[in-house]
Order: sequence, then structure tokens, then C-alpha cells
Amino acid sequence: MTLIKTSDIKVPLDVPIEAHETYIRNYMEITKNTGRLMLFAGDQKVEHLNDDFFGEGIAEDDNDPEHLFRIAKLGKIGVFATQLGLIARYGMDYADVPYLVKINSKSHLIPTKQMDPFSNQWYEVSQVADFRDNSKLKILGVGYTIYLGSEYEADMLAQAAQVVYDAHQYGMITVLWIYPRGAAVTDEKDPHLIAGATGVGACLNADFVKVNYPKKEGCLSAEIFKEAVRAAGRTKVVCAGGSSDEPKTFLKKLHDQIHVSGAMGNATGRNIHQKPLDEAVRMCNAIYAITIEDATVEEAFKIYKGE
Amino acid sequence: MTLIKTSDIKVPLDVPIEAHETYIRNYMEITKNTGRLMLFAGDQKVEHLNDDFFGEGIAEDDNDPEHLFRIAKLGKIGVFATQLGLIARYGMDYADVPYLVKINSKSHLIPTKQMDPFSNQWYEVSQVADFRDNSKLKILGVGYTIYLGSEYEADMLAQAAQVVYDAHQYGMITVLWIYPRGAAVTDEKDPHLIAGATGVGACLNADFVKVNYPKKEGCLSAEIFKEAVRAAGRTKVVCAGGSSDEPKTFLKKLHDQIHVSGAMGNATGRNIHQKPLDEAVRMCNAIYAITIEDATVEEAFKIYKGE
Amino acid sequence: MTLIKTSDIKVPLDVPIEAHETYIRNYMEITKNTGRLMLFAGDQKVEHLNDDFFGEGIAEDDNDPEHLFRIAKLGKIGVFATQLGLIARYGMDYADVPYLVKINSKSHLIPTKQMDPFSNQWYEVSQVADFRDNSKLKILGVGYTIYLGSEYEADMLAQAAQVVYDAHQYGMITVLWIYPRGAAVTDEKDPHLIAGATGVGACLNADFVKVNYPKKEGCLSAEIFKEAVRAAGRTKVVCAGGSSDEPKTFLKKLHDQIHVSGAMGNATGRNIHQKPLDEAVRMCNAIYAITIEDATVEEAFKIYKGE
Amino acid sequence: MTLIKTSDIKVPLDVPIEAHETYIRNYMEITKNTGRLMLFAGDQKVEHLNDDFFGEGIAEDDNDPEHLFRIAKLGKIGVFATQLGLIARYGMDYADVPYLVKINSKSHLIPTKQMDPFSNQWYEVSQVADFRDNSKLKILGVGYTIYLGSEYEADMLAQAAQVVYDAHQYGMITVLWIYPRGAAVTDEKDPHLIAGATGVGACLNADFVKVNYPKKEGCLSAEIFKEAVRAAGRTKVVCAGGSSDEPKTFLKKLHDQIHVSGAMGNATGRNIHQKPLDEAVRMCNAIYAITIEDATVEEAFKIYKGE
Amino acid sequence: MTLIKTSDIKVPLDVPIEAHETYIRNYMEITKNTGRLMLFAGDQKVEHLNDDFFGEGIAEDDNDPEHLFRIAKLGKIGVFATQLGLIARYGMDYADVPYLVKINSKSHLIPTKQMDPFSNQWYEVSQVADFRDNSKLKILGVGYTIYLGSEYEADMLAQAAQVVYDAHQYGMITVLWIYPRGAAVTDEKDPHLIAGATGVGACLNADFVKVNYPKKEGCLSAEIFKEAVRAAGRTKVVCAGGSSDEPKTFLKKLHDQIHVSGAMGNATGRNIHQKPLDEAVRMCNAIYAITIEDATVEEAFKIYKGE
Repeated sequence: MTLIKTSDIKVPLDVPIEAHETYIRNYMEITKNTGRLMLFAGDQKVEHLNDDFFGEGIAEDDNDPEHLFRIAKLGKIGVFATQLGLIARYGMDYADVPYLVKINSKSHLIPTKQMDPFSNQWYEVSQVADFRDNSKLKILGVGYTIYLGSEYEADMLAQAAQVVYDAHQYGMITVLWIYPRGAAVTDEKDPHLIAGATGVGACLNADFVKVNYPKKEGCLSAEIFKEAVRAAGRTKVVCAGGSSDEPKTFLKKLHDQIHVSGAMGNATGRNIHQKPLDEAVRMCNAIYAITIEDATVEEAFKIYKGE
Repeated sequence: MTLIKTSDIKVPLDVPIEAHETYIRNYMEITKNTGRLMLFAGDQKVEHLNDDFFGEGIAEDDNDPEHLFRIAKLGKIGVFATQLGLIARYGMDYADVPYLVKINSKSHLIPTKQMDPFSNQWYEVSQVADFRDNSKLKILGVGYTIYLGSEYEADMLAQAAQVVYDAHQYGMITVLWIYPRGAAVTDEKDPHLIAGATGVGACLNADFVKVNYPKKEGCLSAEIFKEAVRAAGRTKVVCAGGSSDEPKTFLKKLHDQIHVSGAMGNATGRNIHQKPLDEAVRMCNAIYAITIEDATVEEAFKIYKGE
Repeated sequence: MTLIKTSDIKVPLDVPIEAHETYIRNYMEITKNTGRLMLFAGDQKVEHLNDDFFGEGIAEDDNDPEHLFRIAKLGKIGVFATQLGLIARYGMDYADVPYLVKINSKSHLIPTKQMDPFSNQWYEVSQVADFRDNSKLKILGVGYTIYLGSEYEADMLAQAAQVVYDAHQYGMITVLWIYPRGAAVTDEKDPHLIAGATGVGACLNADFVKVNYPKKEGCLSAEIFKEAVRAAGRTKVVCAGGSSDEPKTFLKKLHDQIHVSGAMGNATGRNIHQKPLDEAVRMCNAIYAITIEDATVEEAFKIYKGE
Repeated sequence: MTLIKTSDIKVPLDVPIEAHETYIRNYMEITKNTGRLMLFAGDQKVEHLNDDFFGEGIAEDDNDPEHLFRIAKLGKIGVFATQLGLIARYGMDYADVPYLVKINSKSHLIPTKQMDPFSNQWYEVSQVADFRDNSKLKILGVGYTIYLGSEYEADMLAQAAQVVYDAHQYGMITVLWIYPRGAAVTDEKDPHLIAGATGVGACLNADFVKVNYPKKEGCLSAEIFKEAVRAAGRTKVVCAGGSSDEPKTFLKKLHDQIHVSGAMGNATGRNIHQKPLDEAVRMCNAIYAITIEDATVEEAFKIYKGE
Repeated sequence: MTLIKTSDIKVPLDVPIEAHETYIRNYMEITKNTGRLMLFAGDQKVEHLNDDFFGEGIAEDDNDPEHLFRIAKLGKIGVFATQLGLIARYGMDYADVPYLVKINSKSHLIPTKQMDPFSNQWYEVSQVADFRDNSKLKILGVGYTIYLGSEYEADMLAQAAQVVYDAHQYGMITVLWIYPRGAAVTDEKDPHLIAGATGVGACLNADFVKVNYPKKEGCLSAEIFKEAVRAAGRTKVVCAGGSSDEPKTFLKKLHDQIHVSGAMGNATGRNIHQKPLDEAVRMCNAIYAITIEDATVEEAFKIYKGE
């Protein structure tokens, strides 16, 4: 377990002096003093409607939104990312959970072939800050999704720039989800394109940028992902967990992302919450062990197995 | 008749401390201290123009907008939902009626095959609050319709998020009408899709989410509706009454929604106001009996029959 | 001549207490204490460009915009509706004329088959109020046109709601022109559709709603118009005069609208201003006699004939 | 040379009392106390890019933007209309020139068959007023172009209404360029359509409206232009100079516009600035002689010839 | 090395008196007291994603965004232009570098044949000014890209006008990138069109306008570029470096642009940063020598070669 010191943190220069302390405290808390982020992603009730929460292969627990909060409370996580509405409904009973407000969202009903994706901002950052103060919850940051290459890219880039800038005024940590998508995008997992996405995250001043793990015929993802990690510079890269995967394979992938590619964490949703509570918590802890506690894949897998 | 206590109410965390009392009072009043909502829906003069108020099978009374207010006054209801304009015109003579301002509306003239639906916000919530204070009426909440899957979904999600957030600042109760509709939506009544809609309502922090009753070949609606009720979590689900139905069948449906599916109320318009005043009032009372007073279908039907 | 008392006026509840007196005074003045509105419509220089003012069958006087003001001064009218610009140019010489500012306008150059109509708001209501105060003119109200069923309906409904709300803050009277129009509208004069339009006017809190006189094969317009008058409830319905008509026929129509259908006035433009000044003034007076002074068609026709 | 008195000026009623004096002073200065406007139009560097300033038949001087300022300083003009940017760059050396800020502009790159024209507002009028105060220049007014009949007409009408209203708050004179253009417009020079355009200018409260000189097979332009001049009422009509013309023909046309049609001036660009400085100055003076000094065509032509 | 005096600088008239000193100081610093601008362009991580930073023929160093800052620190430059985000991340370690914030950006994913380009503004200029004050960095100016002839030209012209106006309020220097592009543009390098672009820059009050070097069959670029330099008047023209070129050819081109065409500098990105650090720094210094120190091509080439 490698700890960072507060003096290691390079506070971005748009954070006002009076918010430095808050920013540093949030950064330390969200990364558990390691600089690495284990983000439990729970924004899919809008993004994928009920597809991720109910159906074959999904634990019955998952259809109740409280399942997410139970996991976030009982499992080890860096931060739980979801919409403000859910936090407002359950936060009073889950006050110890560290939260990140996903500030824009859209459903997946419209296929790209009908219309390019646009995920619109739901709140002003100042409202999130007011919510933080009013709720007394640990709202450590905000998240925003950009569909790069969409015909609505211009709207999303401008909103994202403002979200990051505004969040930094309050010392909040920012995570940008950046996914190339739209009629103009032929290969969403292309490593070079994903490196473009992480670079955009850096130019937008994100603290963390969440991208899909690249995939290319005949290449090792962990290797080709290095381009993206490096292209992000001081902005840290975390990988989206994606759809459900076989546990050991999944843990191995996360380990590679950190130790081979140089990623600074991951953002996992379905691979955790589609499991029954107890198993979900163990998966959380396994991911946490790899991300934060420098566990090996074997050690993490044992945690997952409850051994 | 099961009563709730004010201490049972989980005030959403975006309601400021100073508005807690108002929120709780509104919540108790709108649910008649039961947690269940009997919403008398009277926004169709815009939504369906005069189709719901004049024509074959519709009582002559219904073409006069005051018919709605007479019912709301004489019948038992939780809240009467309509546009601010009508409330402003009749409220002085119907000051005891509890109101909910439907804050967006559109006509049904444009078919989905021409253009996806967009229902635009007519007022700022602060104007509704000013109206409440100026009129001294019991404006307990606001309502907003989202067409999920429409090409204008992004606009409506953002407006809805703001409407809920703003309404909560004033301690007002929020009801979201969420209907999947648009070129991308092939089956508006699909139970899984409707569960997606109620989940979106939860993520948007709605107090109540109003959806259509699901329908699926070979399935019992009351059973398949359970997915949606559970997916909404702490956001309560109420069912749209839909087009006119045979009274007993209709009452049975409402009873099932509550006692089989777990819905916390219903929102009925045409099944009430298309009847002559006296019958409409009795239908109101019958629905109220099921929703609020835990009446059986037979008891409610007797109320409707005036026995 | 039936007079109303100020105590008969139901001040809409969005009018603030401190503006009640102004609202009532404006209402009495615009209806000449009768509750009925004789609106002289002079907004066509934008709506129809010069087509209504120059050409065959149109008096030469009409090409000079001052013609409208001369009529408004010399004739009996309830209110003269036109764009702020014209009022700003001629008002200093026509200070006694009661005015209504038509706050949105468009030209008729683009045919519906090319693009659905959108008439955009030109001024904030607060600017109209400032203009009223600065000019010391009798600006009694504002007017706004909605094309119901247009692809831009959402914009116009929202603007109209705001215009009415804002105007009421200043105690001004509001008139909504509501015309179904656009690719989705096949029969603009359908009585049921027009009843939908007047109902929308009521939901938007208009004091008066101006619609086209319905027309249906085999039906008497005066009869089928009743649906619309009743559907508007406490919002008063006035009929658009439409294109030029034979005088007696025209006066008969106005009389029927009031005494058969129950309309509370009319809005006439071309049937007045396309005549030479003297004849135009007499037509004004004839219409006024029917609308405000309860004259018979014969009496009114004599006024028009100067007998 | 017919002079007007300040008492002849009908100050539009949206000009606040405290700005009356400024308005009158600006009006007198911009019309050289005659009520007629000689506008030197220099906004084509955006409107036509470099096509009007470099190429065959254009003096070499014209490619340097300072050419425009030299002419405006050395020639007699009523006002020099151009973009704020150029004024900001050269004004310090041309402080005596009277300026009018053309507040919207577009390039001509997109043909109408691809997309209807939209010329967007670049500055708030309050910024122009601040610029006037900061620069101490004689900024007498603002200009705005409307493409009537364009699919973006709604945007431009609303912007124009605001520009005129706002400019009048500061006592500034307003000139609207109104050109029918777009897929819906088949004959941009139709006299009846142009009369529609000047009428729109009047309804928008423009002090001057600049239109194209009408053209119709078998008609004298000076005669058919009368409809437009009269339709504008108290708003004064000036004619666009259009593309370069043979000098005497051009001067005769201007003389006719004033003395036959009743126009109150003209707006000339290319017919002046495409000539070498000395000739351009003489052309300015010739136009000024006709417009302001009531010179005959022969007298003006002599001025142009330097005789 | 020709130095200018502060008294030579014509401060544009929209710069408020109290910001004159800042403007002059920024102008002197950004041009190193010569009036010429050597701009190191580093905004391509968004504009071209990772294509300019990783791949064949590109030094490995370039994939790390810090490479740009290392060059900016070690090499001689006038100003380093990049997005605010990168400056916020690296500025604390590169406090001596003079910066220009590129305030709008877009990716190149969407081809023009799919949709015309729109580059949206990311920040308000006031935020850049706050950032300058908070970071204590030398933020000397802002940059904005306009795609002239795009269907979104209207948006970009208005944003650019505001960016320049606002930046001048803070005494900041403005650089407009103006590229003709879109379905309506057939030859982006046409000299006459580029002269149109520089003229637009002048009308928008840019201090510097960055355009592509014109190209025309059978013409010398340095000669045909003169039209554009002259058309810009007092706005200074700098040439985009474009894609990587053979060093000597490249330096010759820059020299010609200044000494033949009359350009006042250049904006170079890829020709610098795609090289390894040491070579990149030498290339910087070579360009600087030509631009600022009046070196010959040979002298500059020697600097590049490290001789």
C-alpha cells in the first residue's frame, strides 16, 4: 500500500487558494491517500434504464436502488458515483458513504444510427455544492460524460469545461467519463482514439478521466492502453469496468490496468452490483484490494471468494 | 386506513432545513396522512385539446373547465393537478381544493412519426411559489412530464431535474409523469421499460412518479408492474388512469395496483371528469376509498353506485 | 348596453394585490365597462407585409400606417392592437387611443409546406411596461400569437405562458391569438380543434383568446362555435375578423358570434382599415355598436351606411 | 438645402426623457440638420469578404481598410457605417468621423440554396454605448440587417427589435437593413415585397430602413418605389447603393429616389470605396450634394468630375 | 532586431483607459518588444486528438503533455497557446512561460461532409481573468477559432466578437484563428478567401489573426499572401505552421511570410513539438530568431542544427 503525502498533490491552478485545503482533503479521501481511485459506478439506472438491474443473470437484490447504497456502505470503496436524486433519497441512512454526483445522464433508448448521443447537464455545480452543505454528506466530487465525436460534442465539451472549473471553485474532485461515440466513430475501443479521449480529459482539467479499455486485434489491451495513460499527463486515467465479466478475469484485467498500463484506478458498476449483496461486497473489497492496497490478483480473488 | 407519522417521512436531502416543515406538511396533506396519493389529473385541455372534454360518451358538463373544479371541491381527492392558468381563473371560488401545478404541457397535434415529443416548461418554480403566496391557495406541489427516449429527452431530463430541485427548495412535493415515447420506442407499455422510467424518476429525486400501467401478452399487469414499483425505490409509483374504462374493471385495476403491485396511488382524469358531476364525484370518492381508505373493490363500487 | 361592475371582475390569481386596481381599470377600459372586447387589429404590416395595405380593392389611404391611427382616434374602438414600433412613432399624436402591444410577429413569406410557423417574442413585458410609463400612453395590454400544432409550439407555449404571467404582474390585460397551423394540421377551421385552441388559452391564463371562426360542411358556424366558447371557461373568446367581407354579412356574423355563440367580442382588422378613412370609421362604429352597445345588425348597418 | 428644426423631430416614445436631447442631437448630426441620411456603408469586409476590396476594376487603395476611414474623413458624409472592430482600430486617428456601428454581420460564403441566411448580433447595445463613452468617438447610431423570409427570420426580428429598443435607451439612431432573402423568396427586388420590408422596419421602430431599389419589368423603379416609401410611414427609407454603377447613372438614380420616390437618403458603399481615394472623395461629395444640399444631378456630377 | 516603443502601439478603443497599461505591457511581452508574434501552438490534443502526438515520425517525448511545457520553458517563444486545463495542471512548474488560453476547441472526428464544424467556447473570458489572477501565471491573451463559411459561422462570429471585446476589458491580447471550412468552402487555401478571413479578423478587432498560408497553382505563396496581410489593416497576420515540414523549407517559408508577404509572425505547433525535446527547443529558437531577432534563414537553420 503506497501512500501519498498531501504535499505530493499538485492542486490545479483554477482551484482558488481558499479551496486548496478542501481539494486536498477530498483528493486524499477519494483516493484513500494512495492517489488511486476505486470508483463504484452506480449511474446506470438512467444510462441503461433497468437493463442492468433486472433480468437473467442479475441478482434480485439489484432491482432495489438501495442495493447500491448497501454495497457502498458495507464494501470498501473510494467513492460511489450516482445521480443526485438517489443520494437525496438514501443519503440520510448512508451518511458515511463518500459520494460523487454524476451531473449529466441520458437513457440509451435512442440508437446512434438514429441520432448522435447528447447527455445534458442536470444541475449547476453550485447546486451540488449547496446540496453538499445542506445534506452534510461527503460529496467529494462531480462526474460528467462526454461523447467525443458526437454531433453534440460542442455542447458537452463546453459543459464539461464549466463543470470542472466550477467544481474546482468548491475544491471538489472531477471525473470525466469520455467515450468516443456517434456516426463519425467507427471503432470506439481503438487505443489511439482512446488516447485522444484521455488527452481531451487533460485539456479539460479533469482530475480523473474514465475511458473504456482499448481493444485491438492481435494486441494486448494492457500494452496498447499505455498510450492513453501517458497522453493524459497529470490527469489520472481510470478504466470503465464494462459489462459483467468472469471474476478472476476481471480482477486480472484491473491489476494489469494498474501495474502494466499505469492506470490510477478503475470505475466498476455492473461487475459489482449485479451480484447478491454479500458477493457484491466481497467483489468491492477485492477490487479495492487491488486498487488501493496493492494486492495481487490471487489475494484479491481470495477476498472475493471469502476465503 | 393506515396512517403514517411525520417521523416516517424521509425528507429528501435537497430540501433545505428551513423548508422541512413545509415539505412534511405538504406530504401529509397530499397523501391524507397515508403516504398514498390520489391525484385527480386535469391537465388534458392542453395535452389532448378538447378531445377528452367534448364528444360522444362524454358528459356535457365536461366541456366547461369549471366542471373539473366542481369535482375537485365536491369529491374526495388528494390533489388536483392542472395548469396554473386554470387555477388562476377558478381558484378564488375553489380555495379549499389542494392543487398541484402541472408546469409543462404540449398538445397532441404532432404525431410521433412527424417529430418526437417535447413538452416545454411554462414557468419557473419560483413563479409557482410566488403564485402560491399571492393566491393564498394550497399549492402543494408541481408536476412535469418527461418523454423518455424522445429526441428531446435531454431537454426534458434537465428541466425535470431543475423543477424537482427548485420545488424542494420551497418544500413542494414533486410528481414526474414519465412516458417512454418517440421514434426509438416500439412498445410504450413494456414492463421492463416502465421499470426503467420509474428508476429515472428516482434518480431525478421525484417524490412520486406517474407511469402507464404495463401490458404484456400473456402476463398479468399487476404482476409485471412489480418490477417498476421496486425499481423506483423510495420514490413512490402511481399509475396513470388512462382512457375511460368500465367502472368496476377500473376500480379493480386500481386496487390491484396498490395491493398486488405495491403502487402508492394513482392519477385519474378521464375516468372521473368525463362523467356528469354527480357521478364524477362518486367515482372520485370510490377511487379515494381504495387509495386512501383501504376500501375493497366492492366497497368502492358501492360508493360509485351511490349505494 | 349591459354594463358590468368592477366587483364582477374575477381578477386572475397571478395578478399581485398591488396590481389589482390597475388590472380592473384596464379591464373596464378595454371592454368599455361591458366585459366585451372590440379589438381593432393592426398588426398585419408584419404578419402579411404590404398585402393587406396596398393593391386592388384596398383604399389608397391604407398604405400609410397613419391610416390605422386615424381610424383608432376617430372611430369607436375598445383597443388598437399593433406593434410597439408603430405606437412609438405615432403615439405622440394619438395619445387618447387605447393600445395593446402585439409582442410577437412574423412575416408570411415562408409557406407551411417549407417550414412550420414560429412567431418569436420581440420584447420583454417589462420593456412594454417601461414603454407604457415612459410614453404615458394608455397601454392596456399585450397580445401574443401561438401556432398550435406547429413544430415550434413548445417555444410559443412557453413564451405565451411567460407573457401572460408577466403582463399580469403589471395589471395588463392579455389577448392570445391561437391558430392551429403547421404540417400536422389539416383543417384549421375545424370547430373541435378551435375549441381545443380556446381551452389552451384558458390553461395559459389569457384574459381573451382570439381564434378563427369555425367552418364545417353542413353546419352553422355560429352553432358549432359554441363548443369553443364554452371550452374556454372564464377566458373570453373573441373572433378574428378574417379577410374582407361584404359589410352586412360581416356585421351579421359578428352579431351571431356574440348572441348565438356567446363570444365576448371580436378582433377586426382588414374589414376596417382597407376602407377609406371615413368609411373605415363608420365600420368601426358599426362593429362597436354591436359589440359594446348591443345594437341589432340593422342598427349597426345604418351606422356603417352613415344613415 | 432644406433644414429641419429640432422641434420637427418626432422622438420615438421608447426613447426615455433623459435621452431625448442626445437622440435629437444625434438625429440632427447624422442628417446634417436636413432629415436626410447620407450613409457611407463600409461593412462589406465581412458581408462580401475581400470581393469588394480587391480585384479587377477595384482601386488598389481599397484593399487597405484605412481607405474607408480616409474617405470618411476627407469626404462629406452623414455617417460611416462599419463593424466595431475597425472603428476600434482606426478611430484614434479619425476622431472627427461620425460613426454607426453595424452590430451584426455574416459572410456570403454559404449560398441560399444550401441554407437560409442568418446574421447574428455581435455585441449588446450596452457594449456599443460603453465603447462610445470609452472611445469618446461620435458613435451616433447602430445598424442591423434582417433577412426577411429567411428560416432564421424569427431570430433576426427579435434581435432587431431589441437592438432598436436598446439603442433608443441611449439616444442612438437606428438603421435597419432589411432584405427579403431565402428559399421562400423568389424575387428580392419586387416592389410590393420591398414595401413589406419597409413596413416591417416601421413596426420595428427603426429610424431609417435601408432596402434595395425595386426592379420590375416594364416599370420605372423610381415610381414603383413610392409604395415602399409610403408604407414606411414615419420611418425614413434609404436605398442601398448596390454594386458599382456608371457614375452619372448612379447619381441620377439617387436623385430620383429622393425627388421622385420620396426616399430620405441613401446608403452607398462600393460606388464610393472601390475608387481611388481622390475620386472616392469626390463621389462622396457628389452624393452628399444630392442628398443633403439638394443639388441637381448635373451639379453633383460636376462635383464628382472635380470641375 | 527592430524594437517598437510603447508609444507605437495603437491601443484598440474598446480597451478601457484603466486597462491600457496592462494591454501595452502584454503586447510588448507577447511580441518581445518587436510587434511580431512567435506563437507556440499547443492546442492540438483536442483539435487533432492524439494524432499529432503519437505515431510514426513523431518523437516519443510528444505523447506526454509535459513535453509541450518543457519546450515552452527551455525554448525561446513569444507565447505558448493551449487549453486552460493543461495550463492549470503544469503551470505551477512552468511559471515563467508566457501563456495564451485557447478558449474554444473541438475534435476532428466529424468530417465536414457529415456536418460543418463548430468550435464552442469553453470559458467566459472573466473566468480566464480570474484564473490569471488566481494562478499568478503570465496569461497574456486568449485565442479563438472561427470556421468561416461553416453553417455555424453565426455562432462563432458572435462568440469571437465577445471574446475579443471581453479580453480587451482585461487588457489581454487576442488572437483569432480563422479558417474557411464547411460544405460551402471548396478551396480553403485560396488567397482571396484567406484575405477575406484576415479582413474578418480586423472587423472583429483581433490583435492578431492566424490563417493558413495560401496556395494557388502557378503562384508564389509569399506573393499571393500579400493581399491577406494588407486586407487585415492594423490587425497583424500570423501564419499557421501546418503539418510537419522539412526544417529548412519550413524556416524559409516563415522568413518569406515576414519579409516578402509582410506577416507579423507565425504560429507553429507540430513542426516544433513532434521533435525530441532538444531538437524541438532548437527549432523554437530558430523560429524565434527569424521572427523576433531578424535572423536570416541560414542563421536560423544553424540554430536549429545546433551549430
